[in-house]
Parts: sequence; structure tokens; C-alpha cells
Amino acid sequence: MSSAAKSIDHSSLVRVSVAGASGYSGAELVRLLLSHPHVELVHLAAGEQRGRELEDVFPQFQGLISRTLCETDWSRLGRDSDVVLLGLPHGLSMAAVPELLDADARVVDLGGDFRLNSAATYTDWYGVEHSAPELLDEAVYGLPELNFSVLPTARLVANPGCYPTASILALLPIADLLGGAHVVVDAKSGVSGAGRKASMTTHFSEVNENLKAYSVLTHRHTPEIEQVLASVGGGPSLVFVPHLVPMTRGILATCYVHGLDGLGEDELVGRYRALAERAPFVRLLEEGLPQTKATYGSNFCDIGIRRDSKTGTIVVVAAIDNLVKGAAGQAIENLNLMCGFDRTAGLHGAPVFP
Amino acid sequence: MSSAAKSIDHSSLVRVSVAGASGYSGAELVRLLLSHPHVELVHLAAGEQRGRELEDVFPQFQGLISRTLCETDWSRLGRDSDVVLLGLPHGLSMAAVPELLDADARVVDLGGDFRLNSAATYTDWYGVEHSAPELLDEAVYGLPELNFSVLPTARLVANPGCYPTASILALLPIADLLGGAHVVVDAKSGVSGAGRKASMTTHFSEVNENLKAYSVLTHRHTPEIEQVLASVGGGPSLVFVPHLVPMTRGILATCYVHGLDGLGEDELVGRYRALAERAPFVRLLEEGLPQTKATYGSNFCDIGIRRDSKTGTIVVVAAIDNLVKGAAGQAIENLNLMCGFDRTAGLHGAPVFP
Amino acid sequence: MSSAAKSIDHSSLVRVSVAGASGYSGAELVRLLLSHPHVELVHLAAGEQRGRELEDVFPQFQGLISRTLCETDWSRLGRDSDVVLLGLPHGLSMAAVPELLDADARVVDLGGDFRLNSAATYTDWYGVEHSAPELLDEAVYGLPELNFSVLPTARLVANPGCYPTASILALLPIADLLGGAHVVVDAKSGVSGAGRKASMTTHFSEVNENLKAYSVLTHRHTPEIEQVLASVGGGPSLVFVPHLVPMTRGILATCYVHGLDGLGEDELVGRYRALAERAPFVRLLEEGLPQTKATYGSNFCDIGIRRDSKTGTIVVVAAIDNLVKGAAGQAIENLNLMCGFDRTAGLHGAPVFP
Amino acid sequence: MSSAAKSIDHSSLVRVSVAGASGYSGAELVRLLLSHPHVELVHLAAGEQRGRELEDVFPQFQGLISRTLCETDWSRLGRDSDVVLLGLPHGLSMAAVPELLDADARVVDLGGDFRLNSAATYTDWYGVEHSAPELLDEAVYGLPELNFSVLPTARLVANPGCYPTASILALLPIADLLGGAHVVVDAKSGVSGAGRKASMTTHFSEVNENLKAYSVLTHRHTPEIEQVLASVGGGPSLVFVPHLVPMTRGILATCYVHGLDGLGEDELVGRYRALAERAPFVRLLEEGLPQTKATYGSNFCDIGIRRDSKTGTIVVVAAIDNLVKGAAGQAIENLNLMCGFDRTAGLHGAPVFP
Repeated sequence: MSSAAKSIDHSSLVRVSVAGASGYSGAELVRLLLSHPHVELVHLAAGEQRGRELEDVFPQFQGLISRTLCETDWSRLGRDSDVVLLGLPHGLSMAAVPELLDADARVVDLGGDFRLNSAATYTDWYGVEHSAPELLDEAVYGLPELNFSVLPTARLVANPGCYPTASILALLPIADLLGGAHVVVDAKSGVSGAGRKASMTTHFSEVNENLKAYSVLTHRHTPEIEQVLASVGGGPSLVFVPHLVPMTRGILATCYVHGLDGLGEDELVGRYRALAERAPFVRLLEEGLPQTKATYGSNFCDIGIRRDSKTGTIVVVAAIDNLVKGAAGQAIENLNLMCGFDRTAGLHGAPVFP
Repeated sequence: MSSAAKSIDHSSLVRVSVAGASGYSGAELVRLLLSHPHVELVHLAAGEQRGRELEDVFPQFQGLISRTLCETDWSRLGRDSDVVLLGLPHGLSMAAVPELLDADARVVDLGGDFRLNSAATYTDWYGVEHSAPELLDEAVYGLPELNFSVLPTARLVANPGCYPTASILALLPIADLLGGAHVVVDAKSGVSGAGRKASMTTHFSEVNENLKAYSVLTHRHTPEIEQVLASVGGGPSLVFVPHLVPMTRGILATCYVHGLDGLGEDELVGRYRALAERAPFVRLLEEGLPQTKATYGSNFCDIGIRRDSKTGTIVVVAAIDNLVKGAAGQAIENLNLMCGFDRTAGLHGAPVFP
Repeated sequence: MSSAAKSIDHSSLVRVSVAGASGYSGAELVRLLLSHPHVELVHLAAGEQRGRELEDVFPQFQGLISRTLCETDWSRLGRDSDVVLLGLPHGLSMAAVPELLDADARVVDLGGDFRLNSAATYTDWYGVEHSAPELLDEAVYGLPELNFSVLPTARLVANPGCYPTASILALLPIADLLGGAHVVVDAKSGVSGAGRKASMTTHFSEVNENLKAYSVLTHRHTPEIEQVLASVGGGPSLVFVPHLVPMTRGILATCYVHGLDGLGEDELVGRYRALAERAPFVRLLEEGLPQTKATYGSNFCDIGIRRDSKTGTIVVVAAIDNLVKGAAGQAIENLNLMCGFDRTAGLHGAPVFP
Repeated sequence: MSSAAKSIDHSSLVRVSVAGASGYSGAELVRLLLSHPHVELVHLAAGEQRGRELEDVFPQFQGLISRTLCETDWSRLGRDSDVVLLGLPHGLSMAAVPELLDADARVVDLGGDFRLNSAATYTDWYGVEHSAPELLDEAVYGLPELNFSVLPTARLVANPGCYPTASILALLPIADLLGGAHVVVDAKSGVSGAGRKASMTTHFSEVNENLKAYSVLTHRHTPEIEQVLASVGGGPSLVFVPHLVPMTRGILATCYVHGLDGLGEDELVGRYRALAERAPFVRLLEEGLPQTKATYGSNFCDIGIRRDSKTGTIVVVAAIDNLVKGAAGQAIENLNLMCGFDRTAGLHGAPVFP
């Protein structure tokens, strides 16, 4: 495998580059990688912001790392790096990945280009043809709780979307039972999920003291959740509605499951406990309920479950930091698995509360 | 009717008093009544804050109204007022209402004491015995869109809860069809719904940049929604989960309805249009989706509907200002109906945006 | 005077048009004018948004006013209106005003083009030549507390900037004494002051949970404050620093005055009381201190004063809603004075709190 | 010295206990100490919350540390710890410190009891007698940028207040010149500075979308700033006004200095550069201006300076995270100096942005 070949060139540190370093996911990758014990940051590439100093674009980094944002020269990035992390808008990654793989780099793509395994479905939801459909089969969906066994050997990892991360983790312990069930995922996100580009949708005065649903039944994360749930079980009938909440970070997914009346209380709780026990970043709240702030800046996914005795509905609530477990943190978790590091390396920071 | 008897004493203005004037609902009543053309504010009563000047408790009123918060002497309030508006914690209203009615005052209770028509259900959900069960039958549920025909003659009006207002209005046009259907109401509220009393739950540092579900499946507004929907149709299987959102005002109720596959698209939309046409404060958004900010400070309830062709689920989103349509504004709407005023009197103010 | 000539065409209502109706100041003008008893809204003009329905641009207006945003055809606007209110970026007003005045309309300009009475100073701070310098002398600075006597006959009113409104009102009672004094104005504003255009500066994720000073010593409102204070007294040595606060509405100006040691306590307080007594929208807080929320959505300016016995410094704090007293509300106050209406017409709404 | 004697008992780890672990400063100490390479957390003590699990009080810690909050038994805390960190309301520390020192523990007090070196001044501002005045001389003011040379041998460190930290660091490079100068410090803080106790002042609905000055000229941090500045130079005439900003974390201090006209531009900038070069947590922004978010969750103090050529005023803006550099982070910086560790140990985390 390519990375093995390259491992001769660097002694103990893995050489990592970030493309899209001027975006929020890119900045979060840098923040987390700065305290990663086994990573050497090689290139930070950006589009419009190339040529600027990182600390001018993100003043929080002054005194911590000094680096000029370089051009996104894929062959150079691939050549100089063992792993390249892509924090790019969809459409750009699929153009870059073949070249990166050719240069023997491994890739974690934080965007949506390699998450769906059908090029046709991709076109349906993203509105463009897929330019590298031959890689869709090889790409591993980077949800470590699901794919921990195949991630170590993956060349190309499709990091899950922020909503799917929370939604799928909330349903994973019972996913094999969901064939024929009916599931509503009412998800709520902070604004940073929309990225750093200024728009009316993210204008402070339009978002603050405001709450709305958006992309109702049409959000691109819908087929992603459906695909993963279907891969585990029969696949439920799924309704997914996201909402925009006046906060910067955090996703809360409230999931309503109907049709699992046969599932006993002990088995229900037992399944979630089992996930929390084997997954280092999943925490099951036995008494309380998740709140996004308790995961702030960390890679945790907090889960709480309730069952309505009257209607038989199971309610599962999951909370994550959309920029960490929903993006950069999970990418590093994948990087760790790919490189044989401790899965939690660089991800030990406690949540920032309040 | 008592108020008719009293109408001799005041020429054109109705004499109105507010109890609980030091709370948020009380302050909102005062704000709105200040511009009501047919109301004379008589007494503003308060508990712990009695004896203080209103403008010291609520500095926004300086220069607009000068009044000392008086003691809650029910017989005096009843004697001096045609209508008394109660913004009290549950448990206090049921003790006061009999005395107010005896004094020939009419009452709008903004709290929960007279919303449920069964004393046993009240005890189940509120944890105390009802002290005036004989009035439960007489009390009219003050949702004008539902009970506009009986409100004009009501002596005692139970103003709906904030969540039920948004939830029921979202479902009212199809409520008669919901028998046997399955309904999820995922509701989200700003913090002012919790009142003015300081608590850890409403501490800025705990709420800001945070999001959580609370009282999952156990919130007191659940039986209220169930009762009203059941009164219109067969009553659905209902799951209700409220969430606390880092904003001050606003409720968004996202409702998921399963089991109405037979309802045609034209009829579905037609039913909502019919509500919007007859109800002066319901606005149907034909294209966009509701956002709470577009109702800020106003008595509007904005509604948007979508249907998922794949699962047959109907998604209805409703937005209100919890302190206006969800409390004080609706109470004044009820007052208007009770007194024969234009239903929108005092409620013409446009939403404050941004 | 032109407006007198036109008064024949409309019986009792003044015909008012708004240019820049798709911006926040424009929307606030519409919100307030909807409840103005003597105004007929004629045209709502916009630039990029022309041709769209007002309620599509600002959904809060659905059901309240139905109007298509028209093109900014100045001669038509001038011809059809008694008064035109301009909520435009600087540079656009000076091009439009001559044509509007030629069409016998009177104008209130909410932008900065006619606030400074020197074309050279304008160029220094705004970076462009003034295209209508001949009107600078005629333009009346629309701070009613200062110019109430000349506003009734003004053809062209330069509505004050948001920061200058709060800053000057805070200092007005002692402005005649400030020659030789040293004054620091540390001002803080909500984000809506930056307008509705999306930018990195107003991006929610960049503003929320963040606080910064900006345009330190270089903000365009500095010469405006200096000019007005100089016109009343000798003019102080002034330092002005604005800050961006994570809230939508509100300005708080904290003013520090050194060098007025001779001013006795009684006279100091007496001067502020005198302002509050004669100015319907200035409220002096004798005990407490201003908070922006107590003015939310209203035309009030709340003022509190303290004196430091140790250093002799006088601290004056003033709070306004930047979109009302700092923009649209004050424009309507000016309109009222220009048209001989009660100065508070259309401005009676109580602040929205919380 | 006591800690030397104790250093026999623990090999390489310093034994640290925290009192007041249920407060925000306490939680922040735990968060930071969890990643400190040389610290063993011994006891976490609390008042009302004693007996509860830490993760029940602060769910962010679930899975990271499991500990029962113990009683504040001072002799036990002192006996078992090399250093005790006190996150207590003022008044409690002065009662505890003598006992802790007697038990040979060293102490960092995050409260105000040992910051002022005069018991009389303490009584003037805090309203109570000082119960341990004999320790005021020994207590070292824990601003490492000022007292780095004496902190290594200190037994008792008075950790600076949050406002004084930002204010003094902003003025430190020119403090020796301030005798006779006039200084205004207009400071703005997030809400977490008020602690975790619920109150009307910290109620979300009262703080959100609101801004106010408070404790104008009467805040207890005033004499602290005065004392430290006086200890370095002649001491300026100081005016200090704090403001409450609707955000959770962050302090911005905007300082206005008059009377340093003789100080050349090069020397001015040179002095700040010198501080930034020798102080690992001070960052001088040569171009931009500080924003609190760029320090979020970190121990940095960001500083920007401007000079007004017209009035000669120097404007210095400093930004910190009030819970880190303004409290827990600085306490750990002091701990590091006291124990001979690298001054940045445990404080390497990059700011969390956005």
C-alpha cells in the first residue's frame, strides 16, 4: 500500500496536508492537529485565500503556527504528504482525489463527493455528474463506530456529513431492526455548519433570535443517512428535516422511531450501552439528556434514549459538535485508524463549558 | 351576563386588571394593552414585587405608564374590573377564579389551571388536586381559531399554552382526520417561555451556544394538545418533545403526520388556506417556510406545509412569538372576542425584524 | 414652500415614499409607518430587489401590506410624494436629492451624505467628492432635540447617524461647556447597524460569542459628532471608538468627560432633567443605568449619569435602538416635525422586552 | 519550603486539589488540568454540591474523569495536596488559607481576598473585615507577566481578577509612565464572569439582545488595577467602567490614555513588542485589532494599540478569555511557575474558533 511505501521517508511522524485550510473545517483540522503527537503538518492549501498568512486569515493561530496558505497543487500535495485532508465544497474533491491517489497519498474527504455509493444518486441530490465514479466503491464511509475494521487499510475515506454523524450514531444500535420501521429525524444545527462564506442565510441579524426549518425533505444528507441505515438493516422509511439554530456550533438530532414495539426495554438499553462501551467517543447518558454544549470543541457524541409507553415510540437524542465529531475531529479519528495510531490521538481535549 | 351589568359603570372603555404583572406575560399584556383603543388599565397586581413601581421592575415602561404594583386582593380586583387577566403560575389561578367570578368579573387565565377539562388528568400532570373542578366544564379553551363562536359569552377563558398554540394551529385544518394517525410534534422554544424567575435552566451561560431537549414525553402541554385534537377528531397517537433554544422569544413546532395517505394534495392545501382566510392571525406561507423572527412581537402564527412523496408524511411547521400569540396577545384576542371588539384591536403592531 | 403647494392634492394624509426599502432601515420605516395615523405609503423603491414583492423580501409584512418594490425613478418618486425617506448607502443620496427637491418633494436622508456641512470634510472621511455641495448649507441636521425649531420648515433633513444620535444626546445638556474638555466616547453597537448586506463582518459564526473594537479613531461618525458638539459650544477634544457586540439591535454609548470640574452636581443633573422634560423621547434614569433592551423597537433614548468624585470625570451612558431612534424612528420624528404632526405620531409603541 | 518537603511523597506529579469545583472557574481548572502533564488531581471539593458526582454537575466530563465532589475539609485538602486552587466567592478564601498553609500546602486563590495589600482597602470595597491581614504582605499578585521572578517561591498567590488581568496587561508596558496621566478603562465582559449561581443579572432573557454598564465607578476591580499600576509607576488617575455583553466568555478592555504626549511612536510600539516577546501568552497584533473569540478557551491575551494624532490619546485594546487567562488558565500558569514547570504546561490548546 502506498502509505507503507512512503513510511520510509518519515521516521515517526505522519506527513499531513490540509486543503481548504481557510474554511471552518480546515481551521478546526489545524487546531486539533496542532496537539496531535504523531502528525507533521506539511501544506495548508487554500483557494481564494492562497498566499495569505494563516494567522491573518485566522488570528487565533498567531503564536501557535506560522504558515503561508499555499496553492492547491494536487500533485505537490500528494507527493509531499502521507495523508491529505480535504475540507472542500462538494464538486472539488472528486476532481482532486484521483491525482492525490496517483501520487500515493491517502485521502480523507470531509465533503460529500464520495459518501454516496451510487453516482446516479449523487447526481440526483447534488445536481452534477460524478467525475470519478470508479472510486465510489473503494471509498470507505468514515464513521469509525461502523467501519473501524476497514478504515485501517482505506486509501480513500469519505468523512460523514455532520447531520448523518449525529443521526446515524443515534440509530446505529438498532439499525438492523429498522427495516419496515418509520423514522423521523428532526435535526437542529448551529450556523458554522454552513461554512465561512458570507450569505444572507448566515447573516447575524437574520439568524440571531430566529429559528427555522430549511431544506425540508430535500437536504442532501437524507440519502446519506438512508444509505448507511440500509447497509446495516432493511432500511427504514425516513423523514429528515434540518433546522437552523442561533448558535455557532452544535448539532442535536432528535430521532423518533415507530414500529419497534417488540424490542424489550432491557435489550434496547443494552444495545446502546454496548455501543458506548466499544466506541471511545460515544457517551450514553443514563439519566439526563444530551446538550450540545457538553460536547463543545470535543469529539464526543452524547446520546440519550426514552420510550413512550403510550405510543411505543422510541425517542433517541444525539448531540455533537458539528465541526469536531461532525467534521474535523472525525477526520482525525479516521486518520488515526488509517495510520495505526491510538484512535483518540490528538482528540483528548475536554469539551469547553460553559 | 355580569359584564353586561357592569357595562353601565364605564362608558366606552372596558376596565381590565392584570395579576402577575411582574412576570413576562404580565409585562407583555401591559405593552399590548397600552395601545388598545378600548381598554382602561385598572390594577396591576403582583406577588413578591407588590409595592414597587412598574417602571422600576420593567424600565421599558418609564414615560409610558406610571403605576404601583398592587397586592393581589381578588375581591377588589374583581369588583373594580370587567375583565381580569391572570399571568400566574399554575395552582394560583384556580384559587382566585371563583372569587373573581363571584365579583362579576370575567377572567382570562394565561396559566394551566383551566385548560384540561378533567380534574383527574390535571392531577396526573400537575401533581396537585384541582380546587375548583366545578369550573372546568364552564371554562372555554381560548384558542380563537377553534372557539371563536363561544368565546363572546365566556365568563372564564383558559388561554392556551404556548406550545399547544403553535402545535394545534399547525394541525387544526386536518385535526378531524387524525383519528388513528400518528403525529410527532418536535417543538422548540426560546427561553422566555420559562418565565422571569432566575434558575440554572435559564442561566445565560448554560443556555447560550447550547441546545437540548427537555421534559421528553413528560411535558404538561402534552395532554392539552391531545385533548384539543381529540375534541375535533378521533385524536391521534401523539408524541411531543420540547427543546430549549438559545433565543429569548419564539416557538417553532415541526409536526410530522403519518397515516393521512388518502388526503389529496389539493384538499390538504385547501384546508390550510381556508384556516388562513378565516383566521386573522394565521398566515400560510405558500412558498417559503416559517421563521420565528417574522412573528417577533406580533400575534401572528405562520404556517408552512410540505409532503414527503416517498413516505407519505405530511410536515407542518408553525412559528409564533411565545409571549404574544403564545400568551399575552392571544389573551387580548380572547378579551376582544369576549367584549365584542374587533378581534384584532390592540394587536396591529407589525413584527419587529430584524 | 413646495409641500404646501402639494397639500392640495391629498386631503389629510401625507404621501410618503421610501427608497432603499429592501434594507433594514427601509423595513423599519415601513414597520413604523404602518401604524402612522397621517401617512399614506406611496412607493417603496429598491435597487437589486426591485420587482420583488415586499413580503417575499421581508416575510414579516405578509398580511400587513402588499406592495411590489419599484425601481428608484427619482422624478416619479418626487412627483408622487410629499416626503421621500432615503435609506441608501452614502453616495447614492447626494445624486438623488437634487432631483427630488426639483420635483417639490421634501427629503429625509437616513444616510451620511448631508450630515457634514463641509464638502472637504466629507471627502476626507467618505473618500469621494460631494456631488451636491450647494445643498450642504440648506440641509438641516435632523436631531429633533437640537433642531426642533428649524425642522418644521426644512426641505432637506440629514438624519443623524446611529452612533452620533446616542453620543450627542448623551452630551447635549453639557455641550456648551465642552470647549477645552476632553471626551472619550466608547460606543457599542448591535450588528444590524451594518445593514443587510452579507459580509464576513456580519457572519453569525464570526460575530456570535465575539466582541471587538473596529474603525478605531477612523469611524465616519467621528466628524459628525465633533461638528455638532462644536456647533453648540467650543467643541471638545474627542476620541471615538466603536465596538461590535453580538446582538442585533441596540447602541450603548459610554461617554467620559474630563475637565468640567467646575460644574456643580445640582446643575449637572438639572441640565439632564431639563432635556428629558422637553424631549419626548429622552428618558433620564435617576437611579438605574440604561440598558439597550429597555429601548428595543422604540424611539427612546435612555440616559444615566455618574460622577467620579476622585478624578472629576463625568460618565454619561446613553442607550438607543439603532434602527429606531438611530435611524427610522428619528426619521419619522423629523417627518412629523416637517409636516406639523404631533412629534410622537406613529412612535407610540412600547419597547419589546424581553 | 513546604512543597520541597512534600516533593518526596510524589515522584514526578504534583498533587493538586481544587476547592469550588462546582463553579465555572473550578470546572475550567479541571478541564485544563486534565491535559496537564505534571499534575495529579487529588480532591475536588464543593459546597452545596458536595457528594454529587462531578459528571452529574458538569456532564461535559463524563468519560474523562470520574470523581465525587468532596466536602471542603481544609486540613485534609492541605495535607493531601502540594497545591490547592481556590475557586471560591470572596470571604471564604481568607478563612481557609491559614489552615491550608499550616498543612504545608501552597495556595493559588482565584478570588479577591488576597489581591489588595491593604486590609482597610479590602474592607472599603468588599464590605467585610479581613480575617487574615497578616498574610496580605506575603501574598504574591499572580500576574506572571509582572511577578514571574517571585512566583516560583510564593506560598500564597492571589490570582488576578478577570478585568484587572486584561486592563493591567493592556497598560503594563507603559505603566511606569502613567504617574499623572489620565486613564479610562472601558471594559466589557461575557456573562460567565458572574459565576454559575442563577440570578436575574444572568437570566438569559434579560441578558440576550441587551447591553448595559454596571457597577459604574464602584466595581471591586478598580482598586486592584490602581494598586498594581501604582506599584509599577506613579499611578494614573483611573476611571473604570465594566459592561455586561450578551456572550458567555470573553473580556475586552478598551483603555484610553491621556497625557503621554512625550512618548514617541517607536518607543510606544517597542515597549509592547518587548512584552509580547518575553511573555508567552501575550500576543501583539501589529495590524489588526483584538477580538475575544480569537482567545476563546485559551490563555492568550491579545493586544492592539492605536494613537490618535489629533488628541494625543493612546488607545490600547486587550482581549482575553475571562475563564482562562482571567481565571483558571492564569492560575495554572502560576502553578507552573510555583512548581518549576514550563510556564505553558497544560496550556497549549489553541483557541476554539469559531
